[in-house]
Amino acid sequence: MANQTYDVVGIGNAIVDVLSFADEKLINEQGLSKGSMTLVDENRSQQLYSQMGPTTACSGGSVANTLAGMASLCARTAFIGKVKNDQLGTIFKHDMRAVGVHFETGMMERGPATANCLVYVTPDAQRTMATYIGACSRVSEADIDQTVIQAASVTYIEGYLWDTETAKAAIRKGITFARAAGKKIAFTLSDTFCVDRHRDEFMGLITNKDIDILFANEAELKSLYQTTDIDAALKQAKGVCPIVTVTRSEKGSTVLTATTSETIPTSPVPNIVDTTGAGDLYASGFLFGLTKGWDMASCAKLGNRCAGEIITQIGARSLKPLNTLVA
Amino acid sequence: MANQTYDVVGIGNAIVDVLSFADEKLINEQGLSKGSMTLVDENRSQQLYSQMGPTTACSGGSVANTLAGMASLCARTAFIGKVKNDQLGTIFKHDMRAVGVHFETGMMERGPATANCLVYVTPDAQRTMATYIGACSRVSEADIDQTVIQAASVTYIEGYLWDTETAKAAIRKGITFARAAGKKIAFTLSDTFCVDRHRDEFMGLITNKDIDILFANEAELKSLYQTTDIDAALKQAKGVCPIVTVTRSEKGSTVLTATTSETIPTSPVPNIVDTTGAGDLYASGFLFGLTKGWDMASCAKLGNRCAGEIITQIGARSLKPLNTLVA
Repeated sequence: MANQTYDVVGIGNAIVDVLSFADEKLINEQGLSKGSMTLVDENRSQQLYSQMGPTTACSGGSVANTLAGMASLCARTAFIGKVKNDQLGTIFKHDMRAVGVHFETGMMERGPATANCLVYVTPDAQRTMATYIGACSRVSEADIDQTVIQAASVTYIEGYLWDTETAKAAIRKGITFARAAGKKIAFTLSDTFCVDRHRDEFMGLITNKDIDILFANEAELKSLYQTTDIDAALKQAKGVCPIVTVTRSEKGSTVLTATTSETIPTSPVPNIVDTTGAGDLYASGFLFGLTKGWDMASCAKLGNRCAGEIITQIGARSLKPLNTLVA
Repeated sequence: MANQTYDVVGIGNAIVDVLSFADEKLINEQGLSKGSMTLVDENRSQQLYSQMGPTTACSGGSVANTLAGMASLCARTAFIGKVKNDQLGTIFKHDMRAVGVHFETGMMERGPATANCLVYVTPDAQRTMATYIGACSRVSEADIDQTVIQAASVTYIEGYLWDTETAKAAIRKGITFARAAGKKIAFTLSDTFCVDRHRDEFMGLITNKDIDILFANEAELKSLYQTTDIDAALKQAKGVCPIVTVTRSEKGSTVLTATTSETIPTSPVPNIVDTTGAGDLYASGFLFGLTKGWDMASCAKLGNRCAGEIITQIGARSLKPLNTLVA
């Protein structure tokens, strides 16, 4: 550990995704919001699960997916997040380590089970999610390993974590450690509903200069600025953080800095199966390039490519190495 | 329950597959036998798992896969097999019921965990398996529901179950119930090593006329007759059971009856990802046709088609309905 350095350390929800194909009728009947993530309690999660079709389980969690993707690109990464010592927790831990992510957050022996996210994949390949946050909610200041944060060029945080007070305190501690060590901080807005729940606090992080690299998709950026006009949102976002990246599905992605605004197109993906993880894997490619000192367009290009790869697979973790995508 | 009837009831191992892509080097280093299933204890399973790459988990188990495939073809099916009331057991049970398989075997509250099968998928799409049999080994005579067996046209049994005495007793009871009700019995040889372990007893079942439909692949049939010559094995197998089916990969399948021998070709599959479940899904299609009263060639053709579909997916359970494959 002592001499280990990391490109990125992530603090995020440690979740196992349970994916199933579904039609929109089921999603409407269950009162879920298509394309978004809804938080559910254990009872509701079980009730939803009982109505779900046949499933496949893959390790997930937004920032965890990004780190797994970066590790697959051969970056050095570490993860901080909470699982219970149960079967899903064991799987999550295995999958992080198997791809080479440093993951030493203590597993809980008691309390809520390892989190799961029920993912409904509709015929248009969109995903709709219902998350039982379980053990994730117990990540706390005590889990924020200062030596790991200090050893990483970038600390990457997910907006989803903002839903519990203990996790929020953990993030604030991570930000403090990173800043004290002169390191960069990246942040993902996660989801439109997540932005709705925490808009003022996210804006506070931005105006407080706590965020160096902000990740958003079009819907999240519009939600942040409470507008239906993406161009207006992009205009407002320009320069609020040193780097703002906005993923735009088949249009590619736009990268904003204080002085530049550039849209980097992406190649068409003919065989889209499941868009779960597209944004997460975009961040993998972008952050990989950034820690290598690449220019913005090259970072975005690799981000686009990683996102394009993951949507041809089921789940948000590539079972095959991604390093062939680095040109 | 009272008036419910089933096309097929299966007795088999209730297993969650944990799949990972791997190279042959890893398989050799771990001392596994490529293309076959090795039984491992809990310690060895954990040690193998710790060396495995990133994984995805799908419900599995040979006969369970066949029944899930049949249910997806809109057949009425029931399953008897043992899981523990843990996270993997809950997933297994969910996936059976979600596709419409009747599954009411009591979950264990104590004892070994729900079984898992580590599946290594090599670049040639072949699977090599290491199974920790766990809770499966506890399936017993008490679990064999006579009303379900009596209500099913066919009772389908996997050779893998023959590895424990309690499971063997359970099978014998199932055979007794099925015969008493005048129902048919189907049996899969499962694996060449499984045949090696139990050749005499499997031969005993055949000569005792306990098996009406025997499922094998080329390697298993050669192992049964201890020959390296498939034509010699086919010759010996002809007429030993009313129906013998032999899957032959890209050559399709051969169906033997007392008076006929017919090889039914299969269409080339261009995008093979993972051959896990090919034999199991062949049985789904074949048994589906059989319970509808189709001729042998039509049964085999649907079997070929179901096998051809599953090898384009990861895992042995189709996440999409198979009933579009019924011409």
